[in-house]
Amino acid sequence: MEDDTLEYSLNSRKVAEATEEWLRRRGVQKQEIGELVMHLQRTYYPELTMEECLESVERVLSKREVQNAILTGIQLDILAEQGKLLPPLQDIVFNDEGLYGCDEVLSMAIVNVYGSIGYTNFGYIDKMKPGVLKRLNEKNGKDVHTFLDDIVGAIAAAASSRIAHRKQAEKEKQGIQPDDD
Amino acid sequence: MEDDTLEYSLNSRKVAEATEEWLRRRGVQKQEIGELVMHLQRTYYPELTMEECLESVERVLSKREVQNAILTGIQLDILAEQGKLLPPLQDIVFNDEGLYGCDEVLSMAIVNVYGSIGYTNFGYIDKMKPGVLKRLNEKNGKDVHTFLDDIVGAIAAAASSRIAHRKQAEKEKQGIQPDDD
Amino acid sequence: MEDDTLEYSLNSRKVAEATEEWLRRRGVQKQEIGELVMHLQRTYYPELTMEECLESVERVLSKREVQNAILTGIQLDILAEQGKLLPPLQDIVFNDEGLYGCDEVLSMAIVNVYGSIGYTNFGYIDKMKPGVLKRLNEKNGKDVHTFLDDIVGAIAAAASSRIAHRKQAEKEKQGIQPDDD
Amino acid sequence: MEDDTLEYSLNSRKVAEATEEWLRRRGVQKQEIGELVMHLQRTYYPELTMEECLESVERVLSKREVQNAILTGIQLDILAEQGKLLPPLQDIVFNDEGLYGCDEVLSMAIVNVYGSIGYTNFGYIDKMKPGVLKRLNEKNGKDVHTFLDDIVGAIAAAASSRIAHRKQAEKEKQGIQPDDD
Repeated sequence: MEDDTLEYSLNSRKVAEATEEWLRRRGVQKQEIGELVMHLQRTYYPELTMEECLESVERVLSKREVQNAILTGIQLDILAEQGKLLPPLQDIVFNDEGLYGCDEVLSMAIVNVYGSIGYTNFGYIDKMKPGVLKRLNEKNGKDVHTFLDDIVGAIAAAASSRIAHRKQAEKEKQGIQPDDD
Repeated sequence: MEDDTLEYSLNSRKVAEATEEWLRRRGVQKQEIGELVMHLQRTYYPELTMEECLESVERVLSKREVQNAILTGIQLDILAEQGKLLPPLQDIVFNDEGLYGCDEVLSMAIVNVYGSIGYTNFGYIDKMKPGVLKRLNEKNGKDVHTFLDDIVGAIAAAASSRIAHRKQAEKEKQGIQPDDD
Repeated sequence: MEDDTLEYSLNSRKVAEATEEWLRRRGVQKQEIGELVMHLQRTYYPELTMEECLESVERVLSKREVQNAILTGIQLDILAEQGKLLPPLQDIVFNDEGLYGCDEVLSMAIVNVYGSIGYTNFGYIDKMKPGVLKRLNEKNGKDVHTFLDDIVGAIAAAASSRIAHRKQAEKEKQGIQPDDD
Repeated sequence: MEDDTLEYSLNSRKVAEATEEWLRRRGVQKQEIGELVMHLQRTYYPELTMEECLESVERVLSKREVQNAILTGIQLDILAEQGKLLPPLQDIVFNDEGLYGCDEVLSMAIVNVYGSIGYTNFGYIDKMKPGVLKRLNEKNGKDVHTFLDDIVGAIAAAASSRIAHRKQAEKEKQGIQPDDD
């Protein structure tokens, strides 16, 4: 088992747990991310189940690279909500300014974990804002989700890429699990 | 004036001219790319003119990074059309295989020239395939535009980012040209 | 002149000024970034002057994409110094943890502004830590420059790419200014 | 077992086999890539074995994204050797022109498979050209490795990132295999 006396900064389990908890506290359910994946992939794989979508979301969320981007983005959202960023960054993040771009940069680091085939899905979903993305993107003058809406779209895009890879492997190998996760 | 006795590989004018010519030979009019830009930006800037769209397309096309990606992508399309790539790459490019991804990778190098704010527009247009992208994406068993459709979308996305930056500058400076091109 | 009654979040001049000021407050002189550029490019262009290096640094710093990445990275460094990030992100950023990666992600957004030819220079300088990068990277248990050291290296790498493009243009056009900045 | 009657373009095994064969034909031994990994990681993990380095190289090479980039890059190298690219691309690739950049772009797609922490190692090794990279980079007026030298460096950088993730996991879990590969 894990050794809790290790330095906190090097405890991967705590990083993973914090990621789960922060997503939940910011109002994002895994089920909702799974629905974005289903939205993106249903046309290509009519038999796709929500269980498969959720499994891919879990695998994306298990990557350290992804966890780091999620924690960093949510942190900046929270600080902007509390008015604690320095000007002019406070105004930029609070207002989700169109020329900012660092939210997209962090999100692409998530998409990249399953490769460049996810770029299209990320951009599409980030523009159309289906499901949970619509809710995250609503401005009520209080909640800030400048990073989180892009991040959630990126998780869904990466999970979709993973499904595309696995469906191909299933087709070729007739049920034998691919090992390239 | 330019010195034509320079080594060909280092003659930027010829690289620029080849880019123009190859796009034309592959059936892409700048006007059509301008229409993609208009499609992407009209909602945000109702006063946007086609002239401004075309000017931004020209500026994107003047970048060496962009020219390199265009020439490389079109070259691979042409070779696939002629059946001259080695298997299995021949089949991958000829069939625009979903798991390939190198077309998206080269395209993002184009988008990046005007920054990460173009990622969303690239993905959106690459999914929706409006205008010229629809034509390029039609499979007739003969023409191959595996790279070119993504590349044209990327040029339009980069030109849109440039417009977003300039419109902001115009708004702030009331007509004074920004110098960050 | 500029209209100060515009919304703060859309005032490009203030974003540019804040970038200058934050770099200065965090102890980074433009001269030091210029020295990194000189270090990277001297071998290729023995006649390169510090004035040219500094001019390229200025141009890189004038890009909005670059300013956004600088402000965001320095903000996270400052908050980590003050112990104000949420655990485990606080420990990750404070300790400049090797598996973090968001610092490299933001830095690549800076490098990308002058294209992929800067990737090599960025990685090289980020590993060798010459000049100011060595100082920024020294841990004294108090100052945090997890983002800033990568960012400064990225600015130098981007400025080097700009010089490579311009030197080529000078060689071809014998003094006529290239317009691709 | 696999079904050889599937469309060739969708046969992942053949893509994997072609990647192995093309690397071998172009004179790159996996052992040599393993040595680059050892060169990059020895300082951090003095106990690191060549077996571990080779295992990580194998895992990087098993990724479809990586295979696609390798095949595409080697294809362009071969065509440039044969003088079959269209001018000016022929001269650009044949001469490994400094402002080209598409080689770096494809290489970063390889590095990204194990995340942004590999950017530094890629740039460093691409600049220093240790071991096999020195040989690939020697110009003899005949062989062209414009893409391959960057690609081999990228494989080594990605394999190094994988090792960094696994060593951390081993340290925390005392031997239990991490499942994030």
